[in-house]
Amino acid sequence: MRFVKGHGTENDFVILPDPDGALDLPATLVAALCDRRAGIGADGVLHVVPAKLSAEATEIRARGGYTGDAEWFMDYRNADGGAVEMCGNGLRVFARYLVEAGLADPGEFDVVTRAGVRRVRMEPDGRVTVGMGRPRVVGESWATVAGTRYPGLVVDMGNPHVACVTGEPVARFDLGPQPGFDPAVFPTGVNVEMINSVGDRRVVMRVHERGCGETRSCGTGAVASAVAAAHAAGETTGVWTVEVLGGLLTVTLADDTSHLTGPAVLVASGDYPAATLT
Amino acid sequence: MRFVKGHGTENDFVILPDPDGALDLPATLVAALCDRRAGIGADGVLHVVPAKLSAEATEIRARGGYTGDAEWFMDYRNADGGAVEMCGNGLRVFARYLVEAGLADPGEFDVVTRAGVRRVRMEPDGRVTVGMGRPRVVGESWATVAGTRYPGLVVDMGNPHVACVTGEPVARFDLGPQPGFDPAVFPTGVNVEMINSVGDRRVVMRVHERGCGETRSCGTGAVASAVAAAHAAGETTGVWTVEVLGGLLTVTLADDTSHLTGPAVLVASGDYPAATLT
Repeated sequence: MRFVKGHGTENDFVILPDPDGALDLPATLVAALCDRRAGIGADGVLHVVPAKLSAEATEIRARGGYTGDAEWFMDYRNADGGAVEMCGNGLRVFARYLVEAGLADPGEFDVVTRAGVRRVRMEPDGRVTVGMGRPRVVGESWATVAGTRYPGLVVDMGNPHVACVTGEPVARFDLGPQPGFDPAVFPTGVNVEMINSVGDRRVVMRVHERGCGETRSCGTGAVASAVAAAHAAGETTGVWTVEVLGGLLTVTLADDTSHLTGPAVLVASGDYPAATLT
Repeated sequence: MRFVKGHGTENDFVILPDPDGALDLPATLVAALCDRRAGIGADGVLHVVPAKLSAEATEIRARGGYTGDAEWFMDYRNADGGAVEMCGNGLRVFARYLVEAGLADPGEFDVVTRAGVRRVRMEPDGRVTVGMGRPRVVGESWATVAGTRYPGLVVDMGNPHVACVTGEPVARFDLGPQPGFDPAVFPTGVNVEMINSVGDRRVVMRVHERGCGETRSCGTGAVASAVAAAHAAGETTGVWTVEVLGGLLTVTLADDTSHLTGPAVLVASGDYPAATLT
């Protein structure tokens, strides 16, 4: 099996090219690949398969999940093997791979995801922009970190977020332990962002991802944080810089959609299991 | 740059073949390779270089560090890039690599390390045995975990250990935080093992490695733990099974030496930076 390893703001992925749609990917294999000690190690797997050759993409199209002629399906799996709808950092890396491998032309193109078609654009400066859809502000709630309850904005990015503008330096927060949240509002859990404004439309963000713990970056979390910071400033649109542990992201909020711009790097390539040894 | 990724009881390594002795490995490159998010990810690098072509191995030989005709030098680096004398789990993986790559014949052979020549043996069951030298019992000390002070045996394996036979189920210990130790005995720090006997010459071990935190396995720590368990049983020789988080190790204690037997697995191979993408 050929693989490429890549990352976007240190959210890292094992990319599996599958031009013939022939790869069987049981959860056990995904988990073995993502094991950081006994495997290659990653936050998830980006299975790169032609939409027309993917039974799942064909099924998504059949039930009206997407239209158009997007060529590639991003079959994204979490490190535990579970299928996930979308991943903003993963989609940048996916797009970078397609272009570097000669499977897509530089510029703009569509990618099929379980959340529908997403537009990607290769920027002249080497970053990648991905469409993140329309953030929905649902209401207000709270999160508790280290015994302190912070008010937060509830933002639906396809997955649930509570984004708390704290007014405190968030570097001191430990988001490893599960923050407290309102189970009546979030019966299946929530992604928690702790945010501090540090300048003109610039925030620092720490994130606890539902089911994962603290991560070095979270694409939907970055957009939710920009939405919360804009909301606190009485704005709904604009370009926001979000500092995450893994680097810098740019979030562009428009009236009916959002975009996420950031780095996407291919690190290594090879064979799993080991093949050529010298 | 070609690489192979492998692990021994989940102590994992990036193996770098360098048959011409041409590879320059500054600490920054080692750290980039070992970065678990932005790189390939590993506990360390095993640089595989012919002893005759290595300036460092030649210097070690010149100052009497080894004699004989060992062909390969294990230039082992920690994830931070620092040169390290020896690593028992790493040496197993190094030997497995040499044999699988056709660079050494199966059976027994010598490898040059910064701690001198070490004998390795490929076992018929696929495991690898490495010579770990003579453990020196230096005296007694203690370690403190979660507020409780445990007496321990001080064992010198080339690096310092305090191995505490606790009589308690060690699964409940959290060895992530730095255990307390006696700075008068260990002015440069110490590796701490918490041990529980669970059967006939069988122990469970948790380890906090000096400068690393809790790890899933530690070769010298496994030998030190067997020495301490044997000491507690009034023995000095014998075959001990050591359960670590990353798997099972066998420690053989003889009068004037010790051996460590365990698995060594090659997981993946490839190019860094990414080369062939399809």
